[in-house]
Parts: sequence; structure tokens; C-alpha cells
Amino acid sequence: MATKPSIPKGTRDFGPQEMLRRKYIFNTIERVFQKYGYLPLETPAMEHLETLTGKYGEEGDRLIFKVLKRGAELERALEDRSKGFADEALRYDLTVPFARYVVQHQNDLVFPFKRYQIQPVWRADRPQKGRYREFYQCDADVIGSTSLLSEVELVQLFDDVFTQLGLKVVVKVNDRKVLSGIAEVCGQPEKVVDIVTAIDKLDKIGREKVEEEMREKGVSESAIKGIAPLFDLNGSWDDQRAKLEQWLASSAVAQQGLKDLSFTFGAVGQLKSAVLEFDPTLARGLDYYTGAIFEVKASEGTLQSSICGGGRYDDLTGVFGLKGMSGVGISFGADRIYDVLLETNKFPAELGGSTQLLFANFGEAEAMHCLKLLRQVREAGVAAELYPDATKLPKQFTYAEKKGIPYVAIVGESEMQQGVVTLKRMGANEKGTAMSVEAVIGILTT
Amino acid sequence: MATKPSIPKGTRDFGPQEMLRRKYIFNTIERVFQKYGYLPLETPAMEHLETLTGKYGEEGDRLIFKVLKRGAELERALEDRSKGFADEALRYDLTVPFARYVVQHQNDLVFPFKRYQIQPVWRADRPQKGRYREFYQCDADVIGSTSLLSEVELVQLFDDVFTQLGLKVVVKVNDRKVLSGIAEVCGQPEKVVDIVTAIDKLDKIGREKVEEEMREKGVSESAIKGIAPLFDLNGSWDDQRAKLEQWLASSAVAQQGLKDLSFTFGAVGQLKSAVLEFDPTLARGLDYYTGAIFEVKASEGTLQSSICGGGRYDDLTGVFGLKGMSGVGISFGADRIYDVLLETNKFPAELGGSTQLLFANFGEAEAMHCLKLLRQVREAGVAAELYPDATKLPKQFTYAEKKGIPYVAIVGESEMQQGVVTLKRMGANEKGTAMSVEAVIGILTT
Repeated sequence: MATKPSIPKGTRDFGPQEMLRRKYIFNTIERVFQKYGYLPLETPAMEHLETLTGKYGEEGDRLIFKVLKRGAELERALEDRSKGFADEALRYDLTVPFARYVVQHQNDLVFPFKRYQIQPVWRADRPQKGRYREFYQCDADVIGSTSLLSEVELVQLFDDVFTQLGLKVVVKVNDRKVLSGIAEVCGQPEKVVDIVTAIDKLDKIGREKVEEEMREKGVSESAIKGIAPLFDLNGSWDDQRAKLEQWLASSAVAQQGLKDLSFTFGAVGQLKSAVLEFDPTLARGLDYYTGAIFEVKASEGTLQSSICGGGRYDDLTGVFGLKGMSGVGISFGADRIYDVLLETNKFPAELGGSTQLLFANFGEAEAMHCLKLLRQVREAGVAAELYPDATKLPKQFTYAEKKGIPYVAIVGESEMQQGVVTLKRMGANEKGTAMSVEAVIGILTT
Repeated sequence: MATKPSIPKGTRDFGPQEMLRRKYIFNTIERVFQKYGYLPLETPAMEHLETLTGKYGEEGDRLIFKVLKRGAELERALEDRSKGFADEALRYDLTVPFARYVVQHQNDLVFPFKRYQIQPVWRADRPQKGRYREFYQCDADVIGSTSLLSEVELVQLFDDVFTQLGLKVVVKVNDRKVLSGIAEVCGQPEKVVDIVTAIDKLDKIGREKVEEEMREKGVSESAIKGIAPLFDLNGSWDDQRAKLEQWLASSAVAQQGLKDLSFTFGAVGQLKSAVLEFDPTLARGLDYYTGAIFEVKASEGTLQSSICGGGRYDDLTGVFGLKGMSGVGISFGADRIYDVLLETNKFPAELGGSTQLLFANFGEAEAMHCLKLLRQVREAGVAAELYPDATKLPKQFTYAEKKGIPYVAIVGESEMQQGVVTLKRMGANEKGTAMSVEAVIGILTT
């Protein structure tokens, strides 16, 4: 290989600093998931192709990465192309594998089943800023219960995660039943998916283009006119609710949606946790949602797009033969959260996992002595290391500086004889202070 | 889909209990990696096919999962098969992507570069007991230094991890230079790879078959006879070293190997850490090793195969155009460690991450009250949840039991009025005790 090696487009290497930051995000989310009773699940990167196809729409199907058949299987496929070149494919999201898992293991699971899953997914999308071919999803779902307490809990969970990350956010909420009611009172209930899909783009393309898309999809002029009041709604939840109750009085499904939203707003209000905001134009593109829908936006930084999403679905597992399993789930967009935290300077200065102390290397005898001290320091829980070679001191200091190690321990012949360590803080214009290894541990563990 | 869904053969779903156990292993290893100054790295699941091919031998190349081209690319490949059906492939191990990363980012890295990497790899191996098509590797490497202190550190690291996991192990060590010396004094230095590959199988196939394999590979009878003393070596490191020094007196490379091993034995002895055992027949199949080689075996349980491996390589990055980078690395076999810990009953009874407390649900008013208590309990760091539906109590208890939740909080009307919680320990034949929520937190956080 003559040229410098590279990686496939749309994929990324994550070096140490990015990794420590990503781990900080993942660990925060994971700890909160666990605190709320969600348990971990991992599914294979590869699924049977038939498990995935037909679940993400036509466009989605084209974006699935397929795994090439091998050996005799591939030969047979080349002779008879109707057999296809792949039996397996890389997972496209975590929701379909979750549904597959629930159906496959339904007899072993205890319902309601609360699981979280943090794994990469792969999509053959055209790579662009903020859009990758491999990225992590962080999902939590509870399946097997229709209780609205789950919605309340997930709003609290959003709040808990972002409080811990130190980021101000707004949780936007709507209910698909309200959108269905609107389609109903406008006389085109059968067009609800087209209407929702168009409204979902409001933020990006504006009202005029939303109406144009509805027109193209065959929504009638009178229906488009009928939907119009939706765009003019504003004010508090109570205000908007009163207007919607009146407007959608003839739709039982819309009334149920409003009642459900009232419960969530009431409970969240009593708990005084998240900033919850009703957004009647919030639609979410995915067509399996049937109840509440969520979106989280950062109130700080310049990112316009949402950093989390979610909603309730009534029939996620039906496609695999298990009917009547209602559930609700949310997903954290780790890459976008990373970008916002970086932009708003919210990452902690010292991330867990970085090395705290470097022992300089002065030669074999000193190194051997340092290995013993090192053991003591590590046993106290301090991440520490010995520079492996007895090179010139400036080189060793450069190593510490570039690796972001805050302290260097100098143990030359005289320190060895006196049984002390000279501790030097990097960046400080000081010679360092001689002290016992216990004192070093004391400084590094407080 | 009429039939019950399934997953590709050789792959696995990891449900909550397995996941918590796996996380316990991964987290233990990761914490130790960090404590020793190794920093995290993640590389993409997909690499350019050319990055991977030719690195794992002919057999390995056949086992690489390739990613099918899409759209027009696939059409062109079907017209002209010489183009191949794949440009990308799934990573086969973590070592080649690591080497690729080091070369690609050589100007940004600070050497010696210490990284760890915990990610799945994929191999189209025939699945069988203990062999999977998707499995995790946990690697730590230091590259850019020839210091034997790294070897010493990695032995300590093995010891640290298994001490924390509570598993007794033996770290077996040898040096490729000693094996090269043997091939040299037997008159067939050019056959060293064949000799090493055969000796590597000693544990599995026995001495006779090892000699047979050497014969098949063209190793001469006199050389095979010359190697024989190797199989009869025994005793302490010092005993064996003396015999080897004499036997291999004419080989400079062997003498260097023995000197290096002496350093490692000396240092590990002084540190009184690991149980280190010299095994002159330890060979490790991988042909990039050039110095020390390691293998860890459990001293408990019935598993015969090794649970970790590793060694020093002098030219891992040369294939990508960066010469002269010596390094040493180790790899933990998480699946095997899992099996041993399960067999020897070493998993902690309570694994981090499981739910500690379930609030029973008695209806809307009580549930609302419980949500507030729940918030308090979670803020104290206790993983807790509210049963989402106000179903019959036995069903809620069954849920707690099956999910392994140790405590249930009963807050009915009377508890609500008195401002208490009735705490019931699962499995205990008791009615439960009324107490303040602070007392509950006290019990669950000690």
C-alpha cells in the first residue's frame, strides 16, 4: 500500500480526547437509564436481511448496508441473480432489532419490558456535515404497558440527563391523535400520514412549502385551508388546549389526545422537573408513532435541529407477529449532543479516564523503584504511568503535556534515597515539591 | 413474516442479565486500562477492503465479511466482475485498524502511544461452541517504545484485572527470540514460522502430531530431533534458563531473548504481583510477534484454553508504510472470561445497574405521590422505578421477582396520609416495615 491509509467516507475514528468526551455523554445517559429501571440490551450488528427490509420505507431500504454472500453461496447467486447477493445486513436503527428481540424472546421476558440500548447503526446515506454512515443511537423503551406514567417518566429522564450534562433544553411534546383529529375534521382522515409527513418539515421548509407538499400528495384545497388554524396556535398549553378542544370538538380521537397531553402536562407540572412545551406542529417523520411524540431542543448554542426524539407506538411488534404491544421510547442523538456541549463549552475540564500522574524515567534502578510507587498510587485509584524509556527529561515533559497529564513525579537518585517524590504541576512555573507518595495520593484523590 | 424471527447464525442477543455481567467484565478491564495510562480509541466497523486483505493469511482473508456495493457501483461490478463486489469490509480484529490509525494519524499522536480499544469484530468462521461470528475484543497496546518496562506493566495489568475479578490465573510467558534461536541451532532458521506454528498447537494435538506437522512442512528429521529437548524442559525459570543458555549458547538472538525474559522475571518478582510462569513451548500463532509472548490461563474452573494473549511486535505498521515502530499489546477474551466466571460462580450477587427498588402502583393519586418519592430516591443514586399500571399486587410482585429487584415500596392511601413508605424485602416472609423515604434511601445506599 503506497498511499497513506484512510477510512470509508462517512465513517470516523475517535481518538482519545473525543472518546473521553463521548464516554462522558454515553455514561451520563446510561447511568440515568439505569436509575430509571431500564436494563441494557445488545443485539448483533448483522440481522437477517428480511428482518430489516420493508421497515424503513423505500428510501430506507436503499440505504441498508448488505453483507456479501461468500463462497458457494455467492457462486449460486451469480448464476441465478434472483437469489440476491446478501442474506444479512447491518442494522439500520435500534428499534426494529428491539421489536425483533421482543417477539423472539416474548416467553422469557417480563412485561412491561424496559430496556436501553447504546450501539452503532449504519446507513448508506450521502455523507455531509453532521450526517454519518456509522453513528451511535442511545434508545430507551418501555413496551407492554399503555400507562401514561411512562410518558411522564421519560420527560423526567430527559430532564435528568440534561441537568447532569449542564445543558438547558426544552422538551417539545405533541400527540399524534391530535394530528389525526385535525385530518379528520378537515375531511381527509385517510391522508393523515401525508399531512403529518409534510407538517414534520415545517421547521426546515416553512409553511408555504408544507402546504405545497400536501397539495402534491393529493390533500384537497379545502383540507389545507382547514388545517391552517394549526399554524396560528400559540400561548400556554392551557390556552392552546382550550382552542383545540373547541376546534376539534367533533373528533373523539383528538379529544383523547388532548386528555392524554393534559395528564402529562399536569404530572410534569406537579413534579416541577422539565421545561415542557406544547408544539402542535411537532409531527416526527416516523410513521409508527400513534400517541405522544417528543423532541428535545437545546436552549443554548446555535444548533437548530433536535437532539432527542421519541414517542408512543401501538404496534411496533405486529410486523413480527406479536400484536397489541403498546410502548413508548426515546432516543438521544449523541453526535448532536457532543456538538452542542463542545460549542457551549460544557465538557468538564477533567474527564474521567485521563492519566493524572506521569513518573519520569531516570534509568533502570529508579524505574524499578517507581514501579513500586506506581502500584501504590494505582491501588489508590489514581490513573498513572511510568515513561517507558530513560530519555531526556524535556521529551518526557512534552509527552505529559501533549497527553494532558496534569502532574509529573520526579524520582531521581536523591529522591530514592530520601524516600520521597518531587511532584511537579504541569504548566506551573515551579521546581516541584518533595513529599511522600502518600501526600501525592492525597493531592490526586481530592 | 410468518415464522418467528431469528438472528444470523454465530451471532447473539445479550439480554439484561448477560449484559450486566458483560458490562461488569468490560468495566473492570476498562478501569484498569485507564489506571495504567491507556486511553480509549474507537475505529469504524467498516474498513477499506484493501486495508484488511493480506493481513491475516489466506485463511483469514476468506473469513472477512465484505459489504456489498450498491446501486450503479454494483451494476458495474456485475458487468465486469474483476472490479469486485465490495470496497469495504467489517473489521476482523482490532490490531490492523489500530496499525492503520497510528500510520494515518502519526503526526498528531504523541509516542509512545498507549491506547485501549473495546469493540466487536466479525469473522465468517464456522460457528461452534465458544466460537462466534461477532465477538468483542479488549485490547491494550503501547507502540513507539522498545522498553521492557512495558512488558512488566502488562503482566501487572493482567494481575490487576484478575485480582479485581477474583479469579486466580497464571500468566505464561516466552520469547519469540528463544524460539528463533532453537530453529537456528537446529540448522533451519528459515523454517522458524512453520516450527512456531506447529509448536503453538502442542496443547491441542500433542507432541507427536506437532512433529508430524513439522515434517509435512519440510522441517528436516535432524532439526526435529534437535528441537526435542524443548519438550523436556521443566522446573523453575532459573533452572530452565540455565539449560537454555547452555543449549542455545551459539545463538545470539536466543541469548538476547533469555536476557529480556530475565529482566521481566526479575521485575515481576520484585513487585510480587502476578504468578508468572515460563513456558518454552508457548508460541502464539500470530506471525507478527517478534519478542515476548504472553498467555493467561485460569487456575480455576475447567476451561483449558487461554483467556488472554499478547506479545511484542517490531513492525506492525510497516505494512502501511511506517517502519521501525516497536510495540507490545495484550488482548482479553471477554467471552471466555465470562464462561469461567459463570462456571466458578465469581460474578457478584448484585451487579451495578440493576434496579434496587420498585414502587407498587395503587392508582393515579398514589402513583403521582410515588413519582415525587421516586425523584428523591433516584437523586440519592438508587435505581428505582414505579410499576406503570395499577394492576393487582401479585402481578407487580412477580414483575419485581423476575426482574431481580430486591425491594418493593408499598405506598397506599394510608402510607400517603402518614407520609411513610412500607418497605418489603423480596423473598423475605414479612409484611414490610413502615418508614420514612429517607430511611429507605439509607437502607439502599449502604
